[in-house]
Amino acid sequence: MAIADGSVVLDPGLAEAGNRKIDWAAQHSPVLNALRESLLKPGSLAGRRVGIMVPLEAKTAYLALVLRDAGAEVAVTGTSPAYVQDDVAAGLASRGVTVYAIAGVPADEFEGFYERVLAFRCETLIDDRAELVKLAHTKRADLADGIRGASEETTSGVTRLRAMEREGVLKFPVVAANNARCKHLFDNRYGTGQSTIASILRNTNLLLAGKEVVVVGYGWCGKGIARRAKGVGARVTVVEIDPVKALEAYADGFEARPLDECAGRGDVFITSTGVPDAIGREHFERMKDGVILANAGGLDVEIREATLRELAVDEREARPHVTEFTMRDGRRLHLLAHGNLVNIAAADGHPVEIMDLTFAVQALACRHVLLHHEELEPGVHDFPAELDEEIALLKLASLGMGVGALTPEQAEFRGTWE
Amino acid sequence: MAIADGSVVLDPGLAEAGNRKIDWAAQHSPVLNALRESLLKPGSLAGRRVGIMVPLEAKTAYLALVLRDAGAEVAVTGTSPAYVQDDVAAGLASRGVTVYAIAGVPADEFEGFYERVLAFRCETLIDDRAELVKLAHTKRADLADGIRGASEETTSGVTRLRAMEREGVLKFPVVAANNARCKHLFDNRYGTGQSTIASILRNTNLLLAGKEVVVVGYGWCGKGIARRAKGVGARVTVVEIDPVKALEAYADGFEARPLDECAGRGDVFITSTGVPDAIGREHFERMKDGVILANAGGLDVEIREATLRELAVDEREARPHVTEFTMRDGRRLHLLAHGNLVNIAAADGHPVEIMDLTFAVQALACRHVLLHHEELEPGVHDFPAELDEEIALLKLASLGMGVGALTPEQAEFRGTWE
Amino acid sequence: MAIADGSVVLDPGLAEAGNRKIDWAAQHSPVLNALRESLLKPGSLAGRRVGIMVPLEAKTAYLALVLRDAGAEVAVTGTSPAYVQDDVAAGLASRGVTVYAIAGVPADEFEGFYERVLAFRCETLIDDRAELVKLAHTKRADLADGIRGASEETTSGVTRLRAMEREGVLKFPVVAANNARCKHLFDNRYGTGQSTIASILRNTNLLLAGKEVVVVGYGWCGKGIARRAKGVGARVTVVEIDPVKALEAYADGFEARPLDECAGRGDVFITSTGVPDAIGREHFERMKDGVILANAGGLDVEIREATLRELAVDEREARPHVTEFTMRDGRRLHLLAHGNLVNIAAADGHPVEIMDLTFAVQALACRHVLLHHEELEPGVHDFPAELDEEIALLKLASLGMGVGALTPEQAEFRGTWE
Amino acid sequence: MAIADGSVVLDPGLAEAGNRKIDWAAQHSPVLNALRESLLKPGSLAGRRVGIMVPLEAKTAYLALVLRDAGAEVAVTGTSPAYVQDDVAAGLASRGVTVYAIAGVPADEFEGFYERVLAFRCETLIDDRAELVKLAHTKRADLADGIRGASEETTSGVTRLRAMEREGVLKFPVVAANNARCKHLFDNRYGTGQSTIASILRNTNLLLAGKEVVVVGYGWCGKGIARRAKGVGARVTVVEIDPVKALEAYADGFEARPLDECAGRGDVFITSTGVPDAIGREHFERMKDGVILANAGGLDVEIREATLRELAVDEREARPHVTEFTMRDGRRLHLLAHGNLVNIAAADGHPVEIMDLTFAVQALACRHVLLHHEELEPGVHDFPAELDEEIALLKLASLGMGVGALTPEQAEFRGTWE
Repeated sequence: MAIADGSVVLDPGLAEAGNRKIDWAAQHSPVLNALRESLLKPGSLAGRRVGIMVPLEAKTAYLALVLRDAGAEVAVTGTSPAYVQDDVAAGLASRGVTVYAIAGVPADEFEGFYERVLAFRCETLIDDRAELVKLAHTKRADLADGIRGASEETTSGVTRLRAMEREGVLKFPVVAANNARCKHLFDNRYGTGQSTIASILRNTNLLLAGKEVVVVGYGWCGKGIARRAKGVGARVTVVEIDPVKALEAYADGFEARPLDECAGRGDVFITSTGVPDAIGREHFERMKDGVILANAGGLDVEIREATLRELAVDEREARPHVTEFTMRDGRRLHLLAHGNLVNIAAADGHPVEIMDLTFAVQALACRHVLLHHEELEPGVHDFPAELDEEIALLKLASLGMGVGALTPEQAEFRGTWE
Repeated sequence: MAIADGSVVLDPGLAEAGNRKIDWAAQHSPVLNALRESLLKPGSLAGRRVGIMVPLEAKTAYLALVLRDAGAEVAVTGTSPAYVQDDVAAGLASRGVTVYAIAGVPADEFEGFYERVLAFRCETLIDDRAELVKLAHTKRADLADGIRGASEETTSGVTRLRAMEREGVLKFPVVAANNARCKHLFDNRYGTGQSTIASILRNTNLLLAGKEVVVVGYGWCGKGIARRAKGVGARVTVVEIDPVKALEAYADGFEARPLDECAGRGDVFITSTGVPDAIGREHFERMKDGVILANAGGLDVEIREATLRELAVDEREARPHVTEFTMRDGRRLHLLAHGNLVNIAAADGHPVEIMDLTFAVQALACRHVLLHHEELEPGVHDFPAELDEEIALLKLASLGMGVGALTPEQAEFRGTWE
Repeated sequence: MAIADGSVVLDPGLAEAGNRKIDWAAQHSPVLNALRESLLKPGSLAGRRVGIMVPLEAKTAYLALVLRDAGAEVAVTGTSPAYVQDDVAAGLASRGVTVYAIAGVPADEFEGFYERVLAFRCETLIDDRAELVKLAHTKRADLADGIRGASEETTSGVTRLRAMEREGVLKFPVVAANNARCKHLFDNRYGTGQSTIASILRNTNLLLAGKEVVVVGYGWCGKGIARRAKGVGARVTVVEIDPVKALEAYADGFEARPLDECAGRGDVFITSTGVPDAIGREHFERMKDGVILANAGGLDVEIREATLRELAVDEREARPHVTEFTMRDGRRLHLLAHGNLVNIAAADGHPVEIMDLTFAVQALACRHVLLHHEELEPGVHDFPAELDEEIALLKLASLGMGVGALTPEQAEFRGTWE
Repeated sequence: MAIADGSVVLDPGLAEAGNRKIDWAAQHSPVLNALRESLLKPGSLAGRRVGIMVPLEAKTAYLALVLRDAGAEVAVTGTSPAYVQDDVAAGLASRGVTVYAIAGVPADEFEGFYERVLAFRCETLIDDRAELVKLAHTKRADLADGIRGASEETTSGVTRLRAMEREGVLKFPVVAANNARCKHLFDNRYGTGQSTIASILRNTNLLLAGKEVVVVGYGWCGKGIARRAKGVGARVTVVEIDPVKALEAYADGFEARPLDECAGRGDVFITSTGVPDAIGREHFERMKDGVILANAGGLDVEIREATLRELAVDEREARPHVTEFTMRDGRRLHLLAHGNLVNIAAADGHPVEIMDLTFAVQALACRHVLLHHEELEPGVHDFPAELDEEIALLKLASLGMGVGALTPEQAEFRGTWE
């Protein structure tokens, strides 16, 4: 099977397997499918150039195809060597989209893929953790000229972009796609929640009912994880630094404790914090024999494999995606997916329907930048509220559900104070 | 028992019963109790004058006593004749706080109590639905001179105040106490959730397990109600006008439908919308025999008793707080608490611990206005974030729980983008 | 209003209030209402004599009326002075049923009511904890002559009856109504579960979300209580003596601990064990300040008020149905309903729909004994399975729900092993 | 690596991968590990001969090793070509246990493995669906001579055995291991529940939150599945033929409907019924486009693949373990695992900790037969209650949890009726 010009993928022969995954994603993406016939119909993005850097699996591929079918030229890479599925990369390239991605290559080689995407003369970027944007403002500022704007997928990316905005260095507008309600309320909560727990189940074959699960971080992701952990019968303890979130955890039926207090009693630890070393050496030293460690946060060093390696006298693969570290005193700690995102690196990522919402946001954010960049100042911008509502309405319609409406009297009542 | 000078209460002889309720509230209010020894210690508000208008029951009384013990002069009324407990009013007055409140008096007589509170020469107001603020800007602007500011308890009050701010008529600063995280995340969700369902259970003696509960409005209150309804085994359908909230309801495991579609199948209907006639004539006409109707929203006309009365051929009290309306075709519709807030008018209001948080916010908002009004522009102000966190920390400490902390490396990591 | 001949009630003037409650129960009892037109139609029990001794509130009254309308002569009492509602007793008597019951009279006076029921020349008894049966086998064996059989409402009553059967002393057949699936699966679980938690909420006005609730006993009742406690957001610890039930509790997401280990950390303690002193002196001594103690089990000494009284230096009514005992060290322990069943003595008992199922079982058990006693040996008998299924079908039909059916091929498949 | 004499496995070279899985199972089996040092210590079964036929994966292998290490000679096969993991078979054989099992061979070839197990001169059998027992009573009665007894793993097997017992053909005692409380309360509920939902999640990558899941059959397995489906946010409808179970489903918060009524609205259908064609042609014809079909019941024809094939105009593998059947009208129905048990054929089976309980029952049932067969009549026997409790105590001890105890007074109280 032929692949797109200039693409770099592991093995074009994997295309058929990849395409099957992409077709499955397409089949369960009612919102993107509805947009293909309306805001993103063929020709609507004719000739525009888009660069995408998000974890490269089937749903990402379908986003790229939707944009391509709307008329855009699209180049795609993954976010790291851990977050590429080679068969999907091959499948996508076989359909004529330019792909630069090979799983498992060294980090510096992978960074070359980032640069190739920038070099694709993109007008807009769909970015993750603001990595492409950062690159375009630092090392490869030479490639930033034609960039009109970008959109950003993650909480930590938005935090970074706001820091750039504060310092006045951000050169173009970026839509905080992450902050769209149809993104963070669903992706970070139901998406991360289900897929993190499901990945732990499939990779360990252990029972969660009755277990003590320690969730480190109680943002939207942590809330989703805790809820699903409870949903399979676990008891949950939450570790937070924000006292109000800790109190929410308490009122949600969980204990709220510093990690120092609960490191010794958890059976499973899941991080979603956005900070490095969320679980540190002093905590590993106190854990019970047999614990499971999984990261669902943006950084692959929230649980740092190197620290475990330093502490361990032995290391082996206990099951696929499960590394067993044996401590000096004989305790065995099991790290999943080497500390990478457990739902992406050791499973198939978020559920399809969730990414349908997220990527509908991204596709329309991309369109918004391409159509309106002249009206947008450099800086971080909200995703337009009316597009957010449009996405929700399309999704509800696909479910056969719907919303009510205010009567004129009710609408008037809400607008006045007297 | 003697009562405070000028107080107007039904029967001073009820004071003992009321004081017992107040003592119970005091015993379960760890945050206010901690504040009595720190930010609100005796003398801290010496000589300041405060007016309070919130539903007058035991927890409100304890708020008034905390402020009084900090040195303030305090005048208190309820929000309506339906939201006053006469024994608590008597108890509070017996402890030397000025009270103007009698349950069940005509509405215009009750408005006189509002005016008396304004006439108390208050420097700050603790307000509900912005009623006192409105009065001080309209009919009784003559009494507004000494007012330095206010704080506001409810979502709909904040909406009103923002309308006033937009129109440029608001004369003093108002702290949106409702928007404090320690308020709306807890009061509107866990408070309204538990107390609404508990009130329906106690007043109907019916089983909710298996029943179809229709929750109209999926704001913070509606979310709390739906969760607790599910927690007692009900199936829940959500009616919303905001498509993203409707989609959240779907992902939370509920159906999202216009009321037109589900009026005929619900067993119990609960409103929390902030708009009048959230359930209207056309819906009543379609309901099943025996349905329960309860309001948990800010307006007593979200389910309008007058409409039911027009449609009915017969009306009787089926149980205390349950009015049975018999329709022409023989169907019986049961309205709880005449459409007033079912958890306040037909039960003891929010749980004590919730009001401890809410009133800690109010007490500190009140203190903030009194101490800092000169720095605050007229308009709607956020509750200070550091006070919000302080309240959460005090609550966690009372529970023996706590939070973690960032290491210096983690804190630095979060502040930079490079 | 006239009352039935020979009835003993507190005040016939309470009849109207009582009748309103009974009407409410009737309105929400679809199964009994369907039986009135089929198995229990007028005349079907013509001239038979029935004695009832179960907690006397509205649903019990409706059971008596259904039997009476089927043609029976009925005499009714409650189970103890704590489990009688005087208005309902008056209402029932006003409708021509013989009632012997006054709330709050001394225990020995109340026992006189039991004897009067026996003296009513009953052919069958609807009994609770086998108290009437025991009386008819001991002190008042003289009144047992005409008794053809009985049916039994409770788990602990069935245990007693089996002991009598083992010893060969039981003189007539007793249907273990408690063991009917339509009884214990619903009454003991959803009925006790909802009504126990609801009673605690209404009587304390406290928040359960986040609280540590210790459920002592994990039989059907305890399971229901734990589930509903979790449903309002509590964390639950279960105390059991049966290791398999303890393990079920663990797998249900709770901790399983001896009471010795968790007496010091619970916020709320609920017993449902069937044994005296389920919580004992050594546990009271270890409890935190402010705990809530509630009994939902068959014995009023599972939490023995007398023990608390011995330990206390002070005792007062903190709220209606809440007795506060102050220990020597200042800790305050709050006992609800004096240790009586918290859902009956301090609220309106089980939900109506649950008692509709339970009393449909009782009514048909009563009918079964009256029609078939000649075929039944003395001893404990199962409730007929086909009647159990009939009740479930009537209930499902009232809900508009239903069951599937096996095809002939499937039915045949299930019957063979080859 | 050498394998046990006479073993038949696909590829001895897979032993290392299989042994890693077995080690993982061993590590998370605290009950079997405790029994190795007590009731099943080395030598305790010296020289006894045991045949095992249950799905052959890592936990089964560990059961075989525990019995072997207690001194027994053990022969093992799987239940069908779909329920064998070749690497585990190789690993087990490499440790000296006799294995006859190859995945994916034709059914008649696989039956040869059953016969080889019988021919191993077993004294006792650990059986599944009574297949070995049946074989030993019919076609291969010639091999039954030395068999002293058996134990049975499944609900449907016990049903079969009771039919044999009724007909008086059963020649030896069989322990109904399935009916042990430590088996059916956990394996059928928490085991099937978690692993069925987890398998659907991993094989479809779809979101269950908000979806309508139809659970066909509400026995212990169905109850577990429904609970976990709700736990990931699904709405659940239950199909039952037993009206009381249907009513339980209703009270658990689900709808109870005949399949005829809900075939057209479900998104996911899961069977656990024990009867063939639980979902039939007339239901397939009414389903929505895109539905997921999964079987978690004992028969691989509860959802019959052949029926789908007859109805379909096209068939393809949409994802691994997902067969897409396209109907004449374009609707696509997705059958998982060809209708085999979705948690075993398309995932790693029950959670390890669950099988630790189940296989502790089996190991002790096996021991019970070997030690006590002379005292046991031919027929179906209960698993001894004291062994059941012993297993639960060992498990609780491994968790650091425990049970309380009756005081002598309480014990006496429970034994008397007077």
